[in-house]
Amino acid sequence: MKRFILTPDSFKGTMSSIRICDIMEEAVKSHFLDAVVQKVPIADGGEGTVDCFMHAVGGERITVSVSGPFLDPVEASYLRLADKTTAVIEMASAAGLPLAEGRLDPSSASTFGVGQLIRDAVKNGCSKVILGLGGSATNDGGAGMAAALGVNFYDAEGQKFLPVGGSLDKIAKIDFSACRTLLESCHIIAMCDVTNPLCGPEGASAVFGPQKGADSEMVRLLDKNLGTLATKIAESGGSEVLKINGGGAAGGMGAGAVAFLGAELKSGIETMLDTVNFDGMLRDADYVLTGEGRLDGQSLRGKVVDGVARRAKAMRVPVIAIVGDIGDDIDGIYQSGVTAVLSINRVAVLFAQARKRCESDLRLTTDTLMTLLAL
Amino acid sequence: MKRFILTPDSFKGTMSSIRICDIMEEAVKSHFLDAVVQKVPIADGGEGTVDCFMHAVGGERITVSVSGPFLDPVEASYLRLADKTTAVIEMASAAGLPLAEGRLDPSSASTFGVGQLIRDAVKNGCSKVILGLGGSATNDGGAGMAAALGVNFYDAEGQKFLPVGGSLDKIAKIDFSACRTLLESCHIIAMCDVTNPLCGPEGASAVFGPQKGADSEMVRLLDKNLGTLATKIAESGGSEVLKINGGGAAGGMGAGAVAFLGAELKSGIETMLDTVNFDGMLRDADYVLTGEGRLDGQSLRGKVVDGVARRAKAMRVPVIAIVGDIGDDIDGIYQSGVTAVLSINRVAVLFAQARKRCESDLRLTTDTLMTLLAL
Repeated sequence: MKRFILTPDSFKGTMSSIRICDIMEEAVKSHFLDAVVQKVPIADGGEGTVDCFMHAVGGERITVSVSGPFLDPVEASYLRLADKTTAVIEMASAAGLPLAEGRLDPSSASTFGVGQLIRDAVKNGCSKVILGLGGSATNDGGAGMAAALGVNFYDAEGQKFLPVGGSLDKIAKIDFSACRTLLESCHIIAMCDVTNPLCGPEGASAVFGPQKGADSEMVRLLDKNLGTLATKIAESGGSEVLKINGGGAAGGMGAGAVAFLGAELKSGIETMLDTVNFDGMLRDADYVLTGEGRLDGQSLRGKVVDGVARRAKAMRVPVIAIVGDIGDDIDGIYQSGVTAVLSINRVAVLFAQARKRCESDLRLTTDTLMTLLAL
Repeated sequence: MKRFILTPDSFKGTMSSIRICDIMEEAVKSHFLDAVVQKVPIADGGEGTVDCFMHAVGGERITVSVSGPFLDPVEASYLRLADKTTAVIEMASAAGLPLAEGRLDPSSASTFGVGQLIRDAVKNGCSKVILGLGGSATNDGGAGMAAALGVNFYDAEGQKFLPVGGSLDKIAKIDFSACRTLLESCHIIAMCDVTNPLCGPEGASAVFGPQKGADSEMVRLLDKNLGTLATKIAESGGSEVLKINGGGAAGGMGAGAVAFLGAELKSGIETMLDTVNFDGMLRDADYVLTGEGRLDGQSLRGKVVDGVARRAKAMRVPVIAIVGDIGDDIDGIYQSGVTAVLSINRVAVLFAQARKRCESDLRLTTDTLMTLLAL
């Protein structure tokens, strides 16, 4: 009896990691009838993160009515793992771009609902929260989330208010105390796969603002306002967030998570592998199958295949990566612990055509791999 | 210690089967240091056939001065195998298009030199001749070859002459007797991978004439003349050659080989596998690697992968095909005995780009396969 772990990333623009797991599983079981297959579809923190954890380790899905990006009520759900003390929350479920329903205005959008979800999880006994960043409609630096968790923002007149991206410059003072008390014994990990800083040309507003609807003038305003937020956080006894790698993730939520929640920023892959106890799974595994849309020299920087391989190598479990394209300069990936890399490309066609046949190509390639492993 | 047999076809337009064998061998030996590798690069009868046999089983290369396609002297060589009784001759070495040096006139070109090579082999004690058809500059139905082996062609005045494609209609009578005596105890196999008949719209002149320089008027003349040759062969006590599958190969050399040499027409792959004693090689083999430029439903009709697989299946040796493109409808190939098929495509690009990187892609794909086999 062979044991397989399936830990693919999504193939961007074609297949979700969950779909990939299902296709791979089918091929595995058609060759190894009594195979034990553990599916760990990898999420990056964005939309679908809760689904990936659900597939990997199961748990209880808890649905809560919270405020959406424009403070209209939305039903959002998070996952409480079987340990009853860990919650997995994706910010996109309360502040995601699809919830904006066409209203593209990051200067007004709020992450308030995300804070409500965290509050609910803590109320439900969770002492660990995994917060997926990504897919947001917001640019408020996490101020809305903070407010929902008891952080008080005051303007120059000493009036409490709820800051949004366009009004962060009105903040005169911040009081963290109630939030700190609430989260005192709660460990928060923010899943974050980007390294953008909070402000500047590579910052949240400049890089991600436009896709949320900001024009160049609004980008300038939002960027300036996030700068003000950082200053006020520091002045009010908070941490220095301007230089955090990933501080600019999800409209500044990276910085906000650190400043308001005391969160640790961690890559999606490392967070998932730790949470599902991947090292434990590896103990009995015969093979790990992983993959991503394109594997190349860049894949070495904390991406999925590399992350999976490093752990499997330590446990001497062979790792086979099934990918879309195989770029050049992938020698490093073998050093990381990848045993072999297969491309799903079966005919010489361009991506526009290849994408239409990717599910079938993946199935057939996994099928071929199983045949070879069974020899 | 693992034993590998490498039996690829060429990848049309990119890599010769010999080159493919070398690349595969390198990858095999880098993973299985003490591997025993037997290389059987497959030829189809055209240019390179002698080289393929030389690589597969060795032998003595014998060089002879003979008449070229326009009766100017050329140095041509054939192979005498170690058994000293089998000769491998490719007609292209004496009547090939490259030897025409730009003179494209299939109505004047002759296969006389091919007959001289056969005569030399017989004189040197060969009782079996493998004659590769293909790559010819000629359209003489093998009449030139026949003349060199003692067949006499007479015109209406009873004068002996050497017919070429443009003068086959001058044949009034054919005398086979001297040639039959010469070849009495000689078995001749003509390697032939096309099924075109001698005459008609799918015949030698119509299909292959233009690439040898025939315009439409010449094609009509050549086609009519080959029809006359067939009639005269039959009238002179020879066989009926009009309906032979492959009779139209190499300017009618298929029909001529049957009529004048009593040859058996056989596919390149079957001829090679028989000659190198492939079944014997299989007895100790652990793996067979084969391949061709494109594997699809069409590959089932007597092509290389299929031919290799059927024999290996009978001996229960796994066959892995490494190919350029994998077409649809290849289910039949698994029934033939192919264990697994890998495409060398690693990135989604068109063939024009893929061909430039094919050697590297083949090497890396074989490398991956070896890694998996070594697991």
